[in-house]
Amino acid sequence: MSKPSLARGTRDFGPEIMVKRTFIFDQIKTVFQKFGFLPIETPSIENLSVLMGKYGEEGDQLLFKILNSGDFIKDVQPDDLQKGPKAVLPKVAEKGLRYDLTVPFARFVVMNRNEIQLPFKRYQIQPVWRADRPQKGRYREFYQCDADVVGTDSLLCEAEIVLMLHEVFEKLNIREFVIKVNNRKILSGIAEVIGAAGRESELCVAIDKLDKIGKEKVEEELLQRGFAADSIGLLQPVFSLGQTGDDLFDVLKTWLSASEEGMKGVEELQAIWKLVGLYGLHSPKIEFDPTLARGLSYYTGAIFEVKALNVQMGSISGGGRYDNLTGTFGMPGVSGVGISLGVDRIFDVMEELKLFPEQARQANTKVMITNFDEECRNHALPVLTRLRAEGINAEIYPEVSKLKKQFDYANKKNIPYVLVIGPEEMEKQSYSLKNMVTGEQSQGSVEQLTAILHV
Amino acid sequence: MSKPSLARGTRDFGPEIMVKRTFIFDQIKTVFQKFGFLPIETPSIENLSVLMGKYGEEGDQLLFKILNSGDFIKDVQPDDLQKGPKAVLPKVAEKGLRYDLTVPFARFVVMNRNEIQLPFKRYQIQPVWRADRPQKGRYREFYQCDADVVGTDSLLCEAEIVLMLHEVFEKLNIREFVIKVNNRKILSGIAEVIGAAGRESELCVAIDKLDKIGKEKVEEELLQRGFAADSIGLLQPVFSLGQTGDDLFDVLKTWLSASEEGMKGVEELQAIWKLVGLYGLHSPKIEFDPTLARGLSYYTGAIFEVKALNVQMGSISGGGRYDNLTGTFGMPGVSGVGISLGVDRIFDVMEELKLFPEQARQANTKVMITNFDEECRNHALPVLTRLRAEGINAEIYPEVSKLKKQFDYANKKNIPYVLVIGPEEMEKQSYSLKNMVTGEQSQGSVEQLTAILHV
Repeated sequence: MSKPSLARGTRDFGPEIMVKRTFIFDQIKTVFQKFGFLPIETPSIENLSVLMGKYGEEGDQLLFKILNSGDFIKDVQPDDLQKGPKAVLPKVAEKGLRYDLTVPFARFVVMNRNEIQLPFKRYQIQPVWRADRPQKGRYREFYQCDADVVGTDSLLCEAEIVLMLHEVFEKLNIREFVIKVNNRKILSGIAEVIGAAGRESELCVAIDKLDKIGKEKVEEELLQRGFAADSIGLLQPVFSLGQTGDDLFDVLKTWLSASEEGMKGVEELQAIWKLVGLYGLHSPKIEFDPTLARGLSYYTGAIFEVKALNVQMGSISGGGRYDNLTGTFGMPGVSGVGISLGVDRIFDVMEELKLFPEQARQANTKVMITNFDEECRNHALPVLTRLRAEGINAEIYPEVSKLKKQFDYANKKNIPYVLVIGPEEMEKQSYSLKNMVTGEQSQGSVEQLTAILHV
Repeated sequence: MSKPSLARGTRDFGPEIMVKRTFIFDQIKTVFQKFGFLPIETPSIENLSVLMGKYGEEGDQLLFKILNSGDFIKDVQPDDLQKGPKAVLPKVAEKGLRYDLTVPFARFVVMNRNEIQLPFKRYQIQPVWRADRPQKGRYREFYQCDADVVGTDSLLCEAEIVLMLHEVFEKLNIREFVIKVNNRKILSGIAEVIGAAGRESELCVAIDKLDKIGKEKVEEELLQRGFAADSIGLLQPVFSLGQTGDDLFDVLKTWLSASEEGMKGVEELQAIWKLVGLYGLHSPKIEFDPTLARGLSYYTGAIFEVKALNVQMGSISGGGRYDNLTGTFGMPGVSGVGISLGVDRIFDVMEELKLFPEQARQANTKVMITNFDEECRNHALPVLTRLRAEGINAEIYPEVSKLKKQFDYANKKNIPYVLVIGPEEMEKQSYSLKNMVTGEQSQGSVEQLTAILHV
């Protein structure tokens, strides 16, 4: 006999939370599908050869590895132990757990290149696993919701991501949010005009921390990384951009005029702004943020991040364009753009701001029938069958026991109606329906009560 | 650059298969909910202390274990290597992947005993992992769909399982199936009356193989297991039961009259038959099968198994009653009964018998708008927005390219309608909608064409 526990950083989801999470997933799926994205799923288990080296050194360490089956130590020699875990790992594990949905998607595209039609729009909603240190809001097993288009560099895709985000958050009742947008090419242009051409990756890593550590520390870090003081001086507009009343695109075009790449980035940004308007979205909640880099070096064009307002919470969505997602698997030149929604954080935002609608706060069972005694029960069973045939989620209390206990059960399970079928009701074939929220009682035939239950 | 591959025994699901699988899951969920079951989810990763020892020795071996993070070999001594994998395992792995949904559910019930209301009806649809040798129809990662009621021994639950199975398969268009029913107490009674009281587990294991190895081999195995020849002689009715015209329950009652336990089993069986009728299910597809044991020693009452007819396939569903599911976690006396649906096999049955309805064979996108040139595109974008606002899944081809290529795309993606917006259509504000299945063309305003798309 063991006292059971959850593995660290993992969670159970009981019915109440499941109903709310399902509500979120359903809204997201509906919107993704409305925009023409189709679902795929990839296995939780991938070969380590697919996963390793794709997420940087830290990612390699955070990958959960699966021990080989059978005699997993047969190839391990005593002196391997002294060489350390890196030497032993390839001998004891060849599989790992999915770390994100992007790399498995790239593998999927490459392996199915002859079956799928480009441009390929897919969405994917599945858990991922990371051996991170668990903390508030950070779990070792959590869901990602990704939508990507690959095989086209049309900026319509970027505009549709902006539209899609608006529609998702509207459906989720999250009205106060901002979509921050940047462009990797603008970052490249900035690197160029400050005299640090080609070093935008390092620049990104440092600037990305602006929110967390402030301007001074960012400058310090840049100095440490070997950026010249002059370069850092030329970087100043990045810290004030968007805070002045000037037209952003004009300011950028002036600043970056010497960089072809940078100018292209500004044009792309401007095109997205224009397209969003052409689609008919007025006062879009988008904001250019030149400090947005998301630490991810594989973005090559637009970069997105969504913050919910009025609540302390990291970004609830992020994404961007990448030009060479599948190159690592031998299929170069496939450009794509995608967005990932953080369901756990969205859930927390909705809980904190009390945004879940009634339908996501009710259990799925609509009515419980009481169980008086065998005779009443036998009379109740066909009634139950009729309710279900009407599409009403219904159950009968499985045992003959005190009515109070049965009502308590319905109450605890948030069942909104209880149908009482006792000896009297049975005789009259007129049953008593109690609304558990208002306390209201209705009397009538199955047809009459069904009408109430259908409301 | 690596050539990517799938881990052995795992699968990708592309959009077409996903749409079909989602259809199956949705039907099952709808029925489960209609019967008052609520969803829960448990983590994929569980502590090995929760999983080990629950599935027998073979199960322990088939569990996927997860390598500890960081320096996983720090506690391994060179002489541990000589002791073999069993000595090393506890030092390098403390977590594993979910092997079924039953043990995690038992853990959930015990850990949430103060929050949940008994009787507790839950359903759970999640993947499980087994390091089995992959073969046709057997995967290392596959979904289970379970519904269980715990905390009551009411036979209404057994009857509802029978009803639920009928409704699930009806919704899935699988009309030809049989639900085989047995009862562990009948097996105990049989053991008793053949003079092998208490040995029903061994009897189960042998009899369970009747379908696979035949009567003679079963008898051989029983001899080897030390059953007396006399006992085996007395066992004969088991092989002919149900093949005679006599009333089954009468035959059983006569045969097992000396066994109190056996008689109780027959009564339970008879009660389930009666209840199913009281619910209003006429000609239920249920069949008593005294050789059904499902090899699982934890069943204590009813045992269920469903076979699809007209197709070569193992059972597509199975389950039964267990009296001590949570005892292993220190919470004795919780009786439960449940059913598990094998989605992969159900999928294969439906494919083979061509049972998927049209809605499960269509992609989710309803209409694609063509992309002629920038001007036409700009005119098309608000049209696209209007279609989506009407709840129509719609997309625009993202690039300006040859119409043939655009139609090919729609065709390949099974999009049933293409809306052509060229210069002429733009000018007249009258667009051309092509039905990709019939080839039919309609001309009209957005309102007029929306009406067609809504059908």
